[in-house]
Amino acid sequence: MIPVPKHIEQLKPYVAGKTIEEVVAQYNPPRISKLASNENRLGCSQKAIDAAQQAVSTIMNYPDPACTLLRQKIAEKTGIPAERILPGSGSEGVMQLIIKTYFEPHEHALTASATFIGFLVLINSRGVGLRQLPLTSDYRFDTEALADAITADTRMVYIANPNNPTGTYITKTEFETFMARVPEHVMVIMDEAYHEFAAGLDDYPDAASYGYDNVISLRTFSKAYGLAGYRIGYCVAHPDIIKTLMKVKLPFEPSLPAQYAAMGALDDDDFLHRTQEMVAAARNRLYRFLTEKEMQFVPSASNSVMMVFDTEAQAVFFTEEMLKKGVILRRLPGFGLANCVRVTVGIDTEMEHFEQAFEAIYENLNPA
Amino acid sequence: MIPVPKHIEQLKPYVAGKTIEEVVAQYNPPRISKLASNENRLGCSQKAIDAAQQAVSTIMNYPDPACTLLRQKIAEKTGIPAERILPGSGSEGVMQLIIKTYFEPHEHALTASATFIGFLVLINSRGVGLRQLPLTSDYRFDTEALADAITADTRMVYIANPNNPTGTYITKTEFETFMARVPEHVMVIMDEAYHEFAAGLDDYPDAASYGYDNVISLRTFSKAYGLAGYRIGYCVAHPDIIKTLMKVKLPFEPSLPAQYAAMGALDDDDFLHRTQEMVAAARNRLYRFLTEKEMQFVPSASNSVMMVFDTEAQAVFFTEEMLKKGVILRRLPGFGLANCVRVTVGIDTEMEHFEQAFEAIYENLNPA
Repeated sequence: MIPVPKHIEQLKPYVAGKTIEEVVAQYNPPRISKLASNENRLGCSQKAIDAAQQAVSTIMNYPDPACTLLRQKIAEKTGIPAERILPGSGSEGVMQLIIKTYFEPHEHALTASATFIGFLVLINSRGVGLRQLPLTSDYRFDTEALADAITADTRMVYIANPNNPTGTYITKTEFETFMARVPEHVMVIMDEAYHEFAAGLDDYPDAASYGYDNVISLRTFSKAYGLAGYRIGYCVAHPDIIKTLMKVKLPFEPSLPAQYAAMGALDDDDFLHRTQEMVAAARNRLYRFLTEKEMQFVPSASNSVMMVFDTEAQAVFFTEEMLKKGVILRRLPGFGLANCVRVTVGIDTEMEHFEQAFEAIYENLNPA
Repeated sequence: MIPVPKHIEQLKPYVAGKTIEEVVAQYNPPRISKLASNENRLGCSQKAIDAAQQAVSTIMNYPDPACTLLRQKIAEKTGIPAERILPGSGSEGVMQLIIKTYFEPHEHALTASATFIGFLVLINSRGVGLRQLPLTSDYRFDTEALADAITADTRMVYIANPNNPTGTYITKTEFETFMARVPEHVMVIMDEAYHEFAAGLDDYPDAASYGYDNVISLRTFSKAYGLAGYRIGYCVAHPDIIKTLMKVKLPFEPSLPAQYAAMGALDDDDFLHRTQEMVAAARNRLYRFLTEKEMQFVPSASNSVMMVFDTEAQAVFFTEEMLKKGVILRRLPGFGLANCVRVTVGIDTEMEHFEQAFEAIYENLNPA
């Protein structure tokens, strides 16, 4: 049998959340609200669907390796030059490309203890070092501690902003103070998958707008644009970095329909605004509800809110009981947050469903 | 600026063939036949298009990480158990995953001098060794020489069967004799991207059917199934290998519409047969034409035929003149075959176009 390298052997299998089909099979609840994966509960723009349809007539052909049309479209919408933009198969696909490209074997990446698991898996499967620092007591990236921890072997610092699963963000001041301390040879990955939900905040930094030579911003069409099924995202970086990544990327990613869908999505400001308003309203509604129930939570700049229970047992009980009632939520033991549960905020009927299910199990949650 | 690892710095940028738009802009020929990328000139199955449409209603959700439905469908059609099947973003995406997973730094891959460039780029960008052996004098993989060259540090042998760009294949006997000599710890990648065009040949081996523990077969929907734009393929391997790859793969690849399109394509045997017949007929027509013109070529088990010129200058002249007349072909200097040109075989009107353009420049080709 083929020997498996040790760092690969040690990887844990990915455990996906329960699918709607599985929940139906197990509990057959009268309705289901999938609030577990931070997807856009409004769906996606019809313009994205229509644009993807244009790809059908040339689907037998390979996509343009340079993604010229999509890069131009992103450049138009963002004002960022096309030579600084590179699309990929989701922001996780771009992340994989960057990690594949930029490490020497003795180097390591630095990040927080509780952040996007995809990054951790990519680093571990790359066989390079991973150093993780605790979040602050209010569940935020500790940029000062990160800057302190940088050594000559630190190749990369990863900051999800807003962070997943906590929903917290680092401020403009924190970002600027941090960057002033980061040596030029250290690449800072600013994962802005949830950017569109935080962009309205005065003190939220748009990392790409600073023009740092050693920062790569990641954006995705999987969240606010509602195109998770298509696998498309992009990065913004110095043109030399883009040129290097272009040499390493699979020539024909991302897929042609995904590129067209993304272009269509970028044409629909109205859908994006409705999504942003839906998320902001649902978040506020959830805050009010949880406050009324004296349930602890972490205020969020994202499309999810993290609930904090006193114990892991409570979090397990809550998640399982909610599941029986058709509300799919995400427990966070894999993030080192065993007493926490993440709730994607959704449309009104979903938030209602959440609240009703919550009410029904509330008594048993605190047996006191 | 971020330092770039040496093995990445040394990679050459991918040079794509000319797009239809570029040819129009440069030469504005009355018509264009794109015979450069071994795509399916019949297009794809309408069932694939219709099936992909089903993904639209859930496109805001992430795809099933286990690709359960598609694996079941492939299992049904091929008789291979689903636990031996893993889909990915094109067979090149699966190849990237395998190469990412199975190397220690001191190990190397072994293959031929003239084969699929994607594999070579993936190995070089992985930073491990690459050893390439010459093809035989009739442009075939030299399986005896490959077996001779295996050392303790050989992790992987890559054989494209049929090979790209030569269109040649190794026979059942050659494959069996080779496998008898390959140690168990060496992984043999059988890239069968063009499998469907060779499957009718009595002595063409279907590598997966042997059940070797150390063989991975790669299949794609980009060629015979005409879905190159979707980026979807799969591998067949021992269940332990699949389990290991599942830990390393991006959780949400390939895209949801691509998975549905592949399922639809597998339901359309008629389209596949028409494609196989079209390719066989066009290949024979091309053989006859080239023989009549006393033009040297390599008989092919694929959907392309390699023409062999006496000199590189002739190959350059021929390709450029054909391009002016709207026939896009592929020169092969990157494959170490500077005097060769690859022609994708297409539908009747395209083969006619090829022949007419050829006739028009034929005199000047051999100034004698």
